[in-house]
Amino acid sequence: MAKLKLQHVTIIGAGLLGGSLGLALKRVCPGVHVAGVGRRQSSLDQAIETGAIDSTHLDAAAPASRSDLIVLATPVGAFEGYLRAIKPHLKRGAWVTDVGSTKSAVVRTAARVLGPAGPFVACHPMAGSELKGARFARADLFDGALCILTPTARTPAWAMSRARSLWTALGCRLARMPPAAHDRALARVSHLPHALAALLMMLPTDRDLAVAGPGLRDMTRLAGGDAEVWRDIFLTNRAGLLEAIDQLDEYLMHLRDLLEAGDGAGVERLLELARRRRAKRLGNNSNSLPPSRQRL
Amino acid sequence: MAKLKLQHVTIIGAGLLGGSLGLALKRVCPGVHVAGVGRRQSSLDQAIETGAIDSTHLDAAAPASRSDLIVLATPVGAFEGYLRAIKPHLKRGAWVTDVGSTKSAVVRTAARVLGPAGPFVACHPMAGSELKGARFARADLFDGALCILTPTARTPAWAMSRARSLWTALGCRLARMPPAAHDRALARVSHLPHALAALLMMLPTDRDLAVAGPGLRDMTRLAGGDAEVWRDIFLTNRAGLLEAIDQLDEYLMHLRDLLEAGDGAGVERLLELARRRRAKRLGNNSNSLPPSRQRL
Repeated sequence: MAKLKLQHVTIIGAGLLGGSLGLALKRVCPGVHVAGVGRRQSSLDQAIETGAIDSTHLDAAAPASRSDLIVLATPVGAFEGYLRAIKPHLKRGAWVTDVGSTKSAVVRTAARVLGPAGPFVACHPMAGSELKGARFARADLFDGALCILTPTARTPAWAMSRARSLWTALGCRLARMPPAAHDRALARVSHLPHALAALLMMLPTDRDLAVAGPGLRDMTRLAGGDAEVWRDIFLTNRAGLLEAIDQLDEYLMHLRDLLEAGDGAGVERLLELARRRRAKRLGNNSNSLPPSRQRL
Repeated sequence: MAKLKLQHVTIIGAGLLGGSLGLALKRVCPGVHVAGVGRRQSSLDQAIETGAIDSTHLDAAAPASRSDLIVLATPVGAFEGYLRAIKPHLKRGAWVTDVGSTKSAVVRTAARVLGPAGPFVACHPMAGSELKGARFARADLFDGALCILTPTARTPAWAMSRARSLWTALGCRLARMPPAAHDRALARVSHLPHALAALLMMLPTDRDLAVAGPGLRDMTRLAGGDAEVWRDIFLTNRAGLLEAIDQLDEYLMHLRDLLEAGDGAGVERLLELARRRRAKRLGNNSNSLPPSRQRL
């Protein structure tokens, strides 16, 4: 399946991700009609203006009844309500996917609403930013991004095949993981870092922030993300995030002990281990990040 | 004092900061001789190659005896040894400064070695990067950077005046703080963020890192910094960093409680508070940081 044959798609949630998906679909599927569903007409109007969607709907039932594909792109907490709303209206051969950042709860919800072998494939295209709204949507947002698919044993093969074709056509590299493994990994590489970015903004006083440098700006960039989206991510990955918090806390208390003991060799060993790990696994900074002199 | 009248300067430590200082001095002080002191000839040779220094020395005594200005640019833990080495050789009218990231311990050390009213002005130009070595030195590294001066009641007025002229000539904006206030603020906006960047690299497995996105890369950039430099910063600001660790731990445990209780409203409130605080105090992301699709 090199080509995508989609005539009518419904995107529920017309924010940065939903809007970008609309733009990207129109690039690889000329002639496709993209229906946008949302809570607020103003957000939908923004998505219409950027050309991300072709029609706006406050109710998902009507557009879903005409669609080959329905994509959930709202905060994860709203998925269940929308799945219940579209279920009675799904066409034969239609399938449903999502772009949520947690997968175990999503997969459980979809199985409960659409049935364990329902036409649903849970997906996590790892693209986006802390910017909010369809006005920041980009047709190339998914280009080169990793998309993690988390099917279950009961996910229909035909739907899985369509999911693969969809994200490949949009330029993604694909990976496949069990939902629980996805959530544990993401807790450590994304959800905990996001939580720390927010907590780091709570400590400094206004006077402290006057002497902040680019380091703090980089480290708190994620704290600019939408609070509702991240509330849902945190709540639907509570187990993973709690485990990551406890792991971090152990390291934090270890560092605290080293400092209290004045153990310079121990502190240096820890920092050197982290530095090497980063150089090896996340590549060298010197290619991508010139010495920064940027002031806040 | 609009012009800098320096004929001979010794920079102890020929890394990124020391090397950049040499290049910057040559720009505003044509004809100045910059002597470079270091532990390793190879680092000094690198600084000679980039044009940051004019002569290399493994012993500080001789160049210090000829200098109008001596700058400490090694890891903070090496300051005391160098201060003792140069003290007997200081010319009349010569003064000493530093570029260290912690100030209370540095000020105490300088007072102990050079005397409480010795010709020393503690300075923290907030520039640099995680890159290491004079080969990354830049003449404009200090341009537009904030330089925090932390004089004491006994710091000689003439030396303070020269410190102001020096950093102003190099393009810095100046601020003045008591050493202890500097260290408490920097613990929250720089030293704790640095520690967390390192700890965040310790949690994920290699498999986890395969699904890491640009968020983790940004959040761990500081972990690429030199382990010895940061060991000394942590050890010379133990009180400030311990306080910041304890404050963060309180917030972390608060978030943990909210998650365990499934308190979505509480989680959202915390995230929204952090988001607003960042938007207000660290400016808007949308100007400087486009939606990132960069893969690790």
